[in-house]
Amino acid sequence: MGSINVGIYGGTGYTGWELIQLLLGHPEVTIRFVTSERLAGKSLKSTWLHAPDITLQAAAAVDLQGVECVFLCLPHTHSAKIAAAAKEAGVSVIDLSADLRLNTTEDYEYWYKVAHPAPELLPVVYGLPEHYREQIKESRLVANPGCYATTMLLGLLPLVKADLLIENMPIIVDAKSGTSGAGRNPKQNIIFSEVHGNLSPYNIGRAHRHLGEVEQQLTAVGLERGRLIFSPHLLPTDRGILAAIYAPIKDARNAIAAIQQAYDHEPLVNTLPVGELATLAHVVRTPFAVISLTSATENILIIMVAIDNLLKGAASQAVQNFNLLFGFDETTALLTATQGEAV
Amino acid sequence: MGSINVGIYGGTGYTGWELIQLLLGHPEVTIRFVTSERLAGKSLKSTWLHAPDITLQAAAAVDLQGVECVFLCLPHTHSAKIAAAAKEAGVSVIDLSADLRLNTTEDYEYWYKVAHPAPELLPVVYGLPEHYREQIKESRLVANPGCYATTMLLGLLPLVKADLLIENMPIIVDAKSGTSGAGRNPKQNIIFSEVHGNLSPYNIGRAHRHLGEVEQQLTAVGLERGRLIFSPHLLPTDRGILAAIYAPIKDARNAIAAIQQAYDHEPLVNTLPVGELATLAHVVRTPFAVISLTSATENILIIMVAIDNLLKGAASQAVQNFNLLFGFDETTALLTATQGEAV
Amino acid sequence: MGSINVGIYGGTGYTGWELIQLLLGHPEVTIRFVTSERLAGKSLKSTWLHAPDITLQAAAAVDLQGVECVFLCLPHTHSAKIAAAAKEAGVSVIDLSADLRLNTTEDYEYWYKVAHPAPELLPVVYGLPEHYREQIKESRLVANPGCYATTMLLGLLPLVKADLLIENMPIIVDAKSGTSGAGRNPKQNIIFSEVHGNLSPYNIGRAHRHLGEVEQQLTAVGLERGRLIFSPHLLPTDRGILAAIYAPIKDARNAIAAIQQAYDHEPLVNTLPVGELATLAHVVRTPFAVISLTSATENILIIMVAIDNLLKGAASQAVQNFNLLFGFDETTALLTATQGEAV
Amino acid sequence: MGSINVGIYGGTGYTGWELIQLLLGHPEVTIRFVTSERLAGKSLKSTWLHAPDITLQAAAAVDLQGVECVFLCLPHTHSAKIAAAAKEAGVSVIDLSADLRLNTTEDYEYWYKVAHPAPELLPVVYGLPEHYREQIKESRLVANPGCYATTMLLGLLPLVKADLLIENMPIIVDAKSGTSGAGRNPKQNIIFSEVHGNLSPYNIGRAHRHLGEVEQQLTAVGLERGRLIFSPHLLPTDRGILAAIYAPIKDARNAIAAIQQAYDHEPLVNTLPVGELATLAHVVRTPFAVISLTSATENILIIMVAIDNLLKGAASQAVQNFNLLFGFDETTALLTATQGEAV
Repeated sequence: MGSINVGIYGGTGYTGWELIQLLLGHPEVTIRFVTSERLAGKSLKSTWLHAPDITLQAAAAVDLQGVECVFLCLPHTHSAKIAAAAKEAGVSVIDLSADLRLNTTEDYEYWYKVAHPAPELLPVVYGLPEHYREQIKESRLVANPGCYATTMLLGLLPLVKADLLIENMPIIVDAKSGTSGAGRNPKQNIIFSEVHGNLSPYNIGRAHRHLGEVEQQLTAVGLERGRLIFSPHLLPTDRGILAAIYAPIKDARNAIAAIQQAYDHEPLVNTLPVGELATLAHVVRTPFAVISLTSATENILIIMVAIDNLLKGAASQAVQNFNLLFGFDETTALLTATQGEAV
Repeated sequence: MGSINVGIYGGTGYTGWELIQLLLGHPEVTIRFVTSERLAGKSLKSTWLHAPDITLQAAAAVDLQGVECVFLCLPHTHSAKIAAAAKEAGVSVIDLSADLRLNTTEDYEYWYKVAHPAPELLPVVYGLPEHYREQIKESRLVANPGCYATTMLLGLLPLVKADLLIENMPIIVDAKSGTSGAGRNPKQNIIFSEVHGNLSPYNIGRAHRHLGEVEQQLTAVGLERGRLIFSPHLLPTDRGILAAIYAPIKDARNAIAAIQQAYDHEPLVNTLPVGELATLAHVVRTPFAVISLTSATENILIIMVAIDNLLKGAASQAVQNFNLLFGFDETTALLTATQGEAV
Repeated sequence: MGSINVGIYGGTGYTGWELIQLLLGHPEVTIRFVTSERLAGKSLKSTWLHAPDITLQAAAAVDLQGVECVFLCLPHTHSAKIAAAAKEAGVSVIDLSADLRLNTTEDYEYWYKVAHPAPELLPVVYGLPEHYREQIKESRLVANPGCYATTMLLGLLPLVKADLLIENMPIIVDAKSGTSGAGRNPKQNIIFSEVHGNLSPYNIGRAHRHLGEVEQQLTAVGLERGRLIFSPHLLPTDRGILAAIYAPIKDARNAIAAIQQAYDHEPLVNTLPVGELATLAHVVRTPFAVISLTSATENILIIMVAIDNLLKGAASQAVQNFNLLFGFDETTALLTATQGEAV
Repeated sequence: MGSINVGIYGGTGYTGWELIQLLLGHPEVTIRFVTSERLAGKSLKSTWLHAPDITLQAAAAVDLQGVECVFLCLPHTHSAKIAAAAKEAGVSVIDLSADLRLNTTEDYEYWYKVAHPAPELLPVVYGLPEHYREQIKESRLVANPGCYATTMLLGLLPLVKADLLIENMPIIVDAKSGTSGAGRNPKQNIIFSEVHGNLSPYNIGRAHRHLGEVEQQLTAVGLERGRLIFSPHLLPTDRGILAAIYAPIKDARNAIAAIQQAYDHEPLVNTLPVGELATLAHVVRTPFAVISLTSATENILIIMVAIDNLLKGAASQAVQNFNLLFGFDETTALLTATQGEAV
């Protein structure tokens, strides 16, 4: 068993279970508790057959003594209060909910239509390791990015930082997600009979909540607010996000080079050779982001970004952040297959 | 508009909508009302975009004056009371629920674990036209068969009637259904993320309620009770049932001939040439049953029966029954494409 | 049987079979022949179980005597020669291939990389009834539009005609199609194991052939060439196209009104109330296009256009064109369910 | 890198890639070569993006010097010759094809309709570790079982060994498989448009080739030949097999106990508590078999056996066999997540 004791709040949803699986394979981690309000007292095996026999606890019953880090896989508004208590107890926090992603209570209330449950915690470092690695290393609280937000920021941050976007033109993002992003609670729009054979857009334009955190991070490096247009769609599959970003660029060659260079040495972001296109099949059930770059015209670059919404969009990104917080190699427990030698 | 005024109770579920579509294409039918408790006051278009603009009514608000037939697409226990009131008002009833399928209140309570809501209605003719056509014609109340029951009875009734089954040996039925059979109300086990990539058996052995009506019909023509073993499965698709029936037979040639002859002149039951196999693709979105016959050994006949659970397993079978009740050609509104001439 | 004798070239693919089903339901049509090179001599039933028993013929064996119209469901380059022979024989032609869509041989060679097989036929009327109805009525040769092209033109023609697009800005179209658009011939990229759980873009930017016909039609009413950027994707479903068009508009109110008015009286194009969004489920297995309009910002209108690629994107549009050519009501054989009266 | 040098013949299909992934995670293995006739000279990355950069070789170009074990993921008839050459060179062989599964050339020719390519190799140990572990340990050639065969034998061997089946009664197996079992080469019946929404039986009765190896193993412990009836079906999903075995048993309690005891200490076979049912979701992308036991009547036991066809049905079973051959813990590289402690 590993040397770092961790706890997981919310271990019976899709993200929680992915996270538990990754942490079980982490050589430096010991899982001390997993919470579930609905299944408290039962074994984790009752919901995931091949899980270890961990007895689920109610969040209120948890003992943080000896725990060094907690992962919060809880709905927003629930998460922040647990985060505050953990911080108070000297425990590091990686929050996979939206509660700590926005720097101000105003932004939170604008996007989530509710008062922030723990304003004293804000701001918190934004846990996208490829762009905020150094800040994450020095933090005790990390806001794990949203799944769609991860795709948009991986594609756009290199261009905004290098000032390669044409001013004032809209940036279109047309994204498609599997149904696991909608969670495990039943609602009519996600039953199989409604999703099978269907493709449905939702919250398009300037309505989806992930726009808040994306614009926060992009305006911090110079983008004007209000330029992003974002259309999420629900796909008839369970996992993965593919985002098509239509970026208005000053110069195609420089834009492509900027993105390639940004991820050239990144172990978990894979930029394809020009001419190949990113697909869901490249990333589903992997911790990778895969990016393709297609110059549609001299001034429009199509950036396709593919991730697994439950992994690079949630659980494996959380493990990257954990590794940074505790000084382990960032890919520990993520790159399980040792890369073979060329023969 | 047609000459027969009908009403539909429960028009916003999958079966109700299929039925409405068929009845809209029926030259002799006028739909007078469609009920929905949840959407009363709204247009049917609010749930099915291309539906006609019919204002949904609560069941209690319906006026049966001038209505000659009602179709009940309601949950069991709800249906029987409406049926009783309609009968009282002199209106014919085609009940697509389970409430009128079992002849005795004892059987109903055994399988449905609740007292029968209108025992005075029992027994009622069992609405499988290929086998009870003459009785249906003379009825005012028809119990539309269950979807799985339709597959089992189409396969087995010809063999039991002709006394071709070996005594005392189990009859195995392994059936697979699309998710629309589970209805439109959300439950965790039917959300897309749980069904996609999965296949799950449920209520196997002697547990599924359709066994009750199937054994009732088969024992009436001579089968011993208790021989059927039935394993339903939930498929990762939305529509269709394929049942594999493993029938212990005295003689393969006679058994095949009995089934072929039973459906030789049936317009909606298609027996494939020996060597071909029935599939879901043969029947989905059609009113047909397709049957294939494979002699596995001299004493085991594999009868594959495929239907669309919402059509031959519910709505189109209800229209067959309606046509019989009112003296129309049985396939009116079902065989829309005129069969072309051979060229 | 109907009064117009027709023939179908290529009746064993997905489009051909949809077309045959529609024509069998057409009260004024008699199908005189269906061709298939691969299955010549066999019955149409050998590939589509519930088809009528029509013996398939090789194209070379067909007798056009007495035939008034042929539908060509053939690959490009094959189609044009058949069209030329039919025209020569005085037979009307509705060509569902790409061979007659481009007005010039130069454009054809640019997009299809092959010399045009019958240049003398060009130009031919473009068979999008909602925009070229009067010209179609007076034609004998009709080029049925491409499936993606149908979605783009339905969304953009009203804006270009009314000069409501901002000059010089790119028009982004992000479209997603079911696999039936790739046809019925096996290729590794469309086997189930590769498509299930996947979403894959292809030919993105300025590469897809449908751009040629779309720009031809849009430049004819004033658009500058080269502004369209088009990203098609292969969806994990079999039918339907949903295109998201990001149109740079001078004024949101006028743009929305222009599209609403364009289709206000169109029986087969349904513009949703603002606030609702078009989905595949709205259109699959229907002859309708469904359009939704979302003002993302004052200057970007998101036009979602959904069609069934095999119907409004191919076979039902061909029947619209047939009805126009022969003077029948345009929706004959398409709107089968009589719209019920409001109750 | 590990101490055992291995080679993989046929690394670009679904099974080969699963096997490579498992072996890359094996601490004692070094992959020395991967063959592909079609892609020889290219990198494995050209077909599997996240694969290591191994240059694929033609089988004829391989150097076996220093290699201790080869895995054959080749079509039947191709495999046996490579196996013979490897044996000659003193290399251990795990053959995932059917070539070494049948003990006699007569049986091979009966089921595969072709002369055996290397009769001198027969018989070879049958690589189902849960039942032939000791023989496998002492072998140099192992025949990895068929995917369907694995499900049938796991369910039936304990009952036959303990003489718990009723004599002379048929044993029905109704099995359903994902499409990856049909391989990666395109054929019309496995394109997405044909499989989506479909369920299709094939080779039912006594026709499927896996019956040969299953009856060989069962008759060796006392079953009469000819009792098995087997209906495979193609599911609309990519991975997994669920087999429903209807076993005629002398006594339900003893039969259940026999199966439970057979796998009580098996790390990779999981027998569910009575009342729970095995599903594909329990096993897909895991090396486990999951079994459920349902007493339908006193004399019919329904044994549901679920496996991932590419793992326990092929690649992970091959790794079990490899571990046995070379003296490693049988689950090395298979149980990657350390089972957590109960908390």
